[in-house]
Amino acid sequence: MPEAAEARIALDLLDRARGVVDPALRSALETLPGALRRIAMYHFGWEDAEGAPTAGSAGKAIRPALVLAAARALGGDPAGAVSAAVAVELAHNFTLLHDDVIDRDPTRRHRPTAWTVFGTADAIIAGDALFSLALRILAEDPHPASAAAAGRLSTCVIELCAGQQADCAFEERGPQEVTLDECVEMATAKTGALLGCACALGALYAGADLERTEAMDGFGREAGLAFQLIDDLIGIWGDPGRTGKPAGADLAAHKKSLPVVAALCSGTPAGEELAALYRTPLTGPDIRRAADAVERAGAREWAQAQAADRMAGAVQQLSRAVPDPAAAEDLLALAEFVTRRNR
Amino acid sequence: MPEAAEARIALDLLDRARGVVDPALRSALETLPGALRRIAMYHFGWEDAEGAPTAGSAGKAIRPALVLAAARALGGDPAGAVSAAVAVELAHNFTLLHDDVIDRDPTRRHRPTAWTVFGTADAIIAGDALFSLALRILAEDPHPASAAAAGRLSTCVIELCAGQQADCAFEERGPQEVTLDECVEMATAKTGALLGCACALGALYAGADLERTEAMDGFGREAGLAFQLIDDLIGIWGDPGRTGKPAGADLAAHKKSLPVVAALCSGTPAGEELAALYRTPLTGPDIRRAADAVERAGAREWAQAQAADRMAGAVQQLSRAVPDPAAAEDLLALAEFVTRRNR
Repeated sequence: MPEAAEARIALDLLDRARGVVDPALRSALETLPGALRRIAMYHFGWEDAEGAPTAGSAGKAIRPALVLAAARALGGDPAGAVSAAVAVELAHNFTLLHDDVIDRDPTRRHRPTAWTVFGTADAIIAGDALFSLALRILAEDPHPASAAAAGRLSTCVIELCAGQQADCAFEERGPQEVTLDECVEMATAKTGALLGCACALGALYAGADLERTEAMDGFGREAGLAFQLIDDLIGIWGDPGRTGKPAGADLAAHKKSLPVVAALCSGTPAGEELAALYRTPLTGPDIRRAADAVERAGAREWAQAQAADRMAGAVQQLSRAVPDPAAAEDLLALAEFVTRRNR
Repeated sequence: MPEAAEARIALDLLDRARGVVDPALRSALETLPGALRRIAMYHFGWEDAEGAPTAGSAGKAIRPALVLAAARALGGDPAGAVSAAVAVELAHNFTLLHDDVIDRDPTRRHRPTAWTVFGTADAIIAGDALFSLALRILAEDPHPASAAAAGRLSTCVIELCAGQQADCAFEERGPQEVTLDECVEMATAKTGALLGCACALGALYAGADLERTEAMDGFGREAGLAFQLIDDLIGIWGDPGRTGKPAGADLAAHKKSLPVVAALCSGTPAGEELAALYRTPLTGPDIRRAADAVERAGAREWAQAQAADRMAGAVQQLSRAVPDPAAAEDLLALAEFVTRRNR
């Protein structure tokens, strides 16, 4: 299918997911006690810091769209899986609130992060409340798959925690003290696990057996890692599209992203050069030299090839979960959209 | 029953709960990924900061003991409710990890808090992982009550979050800008809710109907508020027993505890005097003056009477949940033990 057509399908799926999930998400947030609700509504972009409604959007709804598309691809009714989609989106936003506190990130979705507006304590507590809400929604959902979904989601969040912990620990280590395997494991836990979980929950809600559910999980995980590799390349060379980080942002922050670690571990002179640069503060011309070093170490090419491999792996897992290519079309469009970032 | 006999029953119940729950809790923690497991084992007092085993204890097991005693009181098999007891204990420790980060508390159970040893990020993440683990254990428990238990526990954690948020918000306000009703609501959410939830989960695991489950919840909540009132009195006048905070600790920290807010809201000259003292740093003689002002405002007596009222309310709820006094004996002993702190 041509890229443009695939992107149209994906945008349409995201729009429709947002349309179905947002009202349920808002209703869920409305049940939170006052102060917590306000922080949550701000974080989702639905209220400003004073509690006045805003026209903002709560992100791209990729995870809810994956839940619904996975349910539909396996013959389930997406309308019956809305609770699962809401739960995954709440869990995702719980991790965003905490990650922003931990990483001291000042902005999220072009707005000041919740902790900068409400303080660290409130952002931690609001994150806790969002995750509790996610699990409450699953516990109260009469769907026969809801308990299994809660088990998968909580197991997934433990993996997300391990990924975030590893990410923080890596920042403390020297430039060549993180192996590529460790870095791939961290990225899989931090990014792949929840995309996999979203697909697996959709499968569970369609009544899929364990084998298909696992294949769905594998599809989301592989696509998630492909996305992370592309995102890491953008963190070095910038975003060809409209949105995203400025070129060099990850290098300036000494971030141990996948291409950087691949370069540092390459055993090449360029890798050594990058390691030396990573031991000093990086500005203007140094950032360009560092980017060049990553490329000369072969790590730009490696990351591009890895992203393609992971997408191929995702497609393979998807064909195991959904043998009928027509039924798999939506999920494939979402995965391509996410990884190519062609929006 | 004489106090000493009741205390013996309670100590025996706590010992037995620890004996049943600790192995299950340890097994659960063993499933956590390496770094998260290490932080958790340190927090529970089972390992030192270097990961070497310690003989430390993980606290008094009051919540697990309440789960098991509530199950037994309603004719259930406590052995079948161990997962619920483990989940409640994990949820409790998740809140402790986050509360210590938020309150910057340096010690917990006479040891440096996890965030002082591993850093704020790791303590936040480890807390998140403990709560995920709690929900995973319930989701994977084949007991027919496990989904309802997960619903109650996650609803309870939202209330705990609201209580902690309110507690932080109160600290930002002036001495006379917190009403007594707000303070009671905060204490109920922060302390009563989880004790109530522990009892309710025991009831659910015994197959109790909604009415008895709610009565059990009410019993734990009322006992929890009685405990908080006693604890707040100790925070001002010190602990008559072996353990606890030094006299005046809460006053030195300008804490808006229940007796303090009762005094500040009393409309008495002593209340005004306390408000003035709370606008200045408090040391030695000022702390004694502040304690005297609380007493002269009638708030020491109020808190003692309130604690007695709440215990009476707890006993009443207990008799609704468990009409047979012999069957209710263990729960009553635990409640008396917790509130009288006669150990």
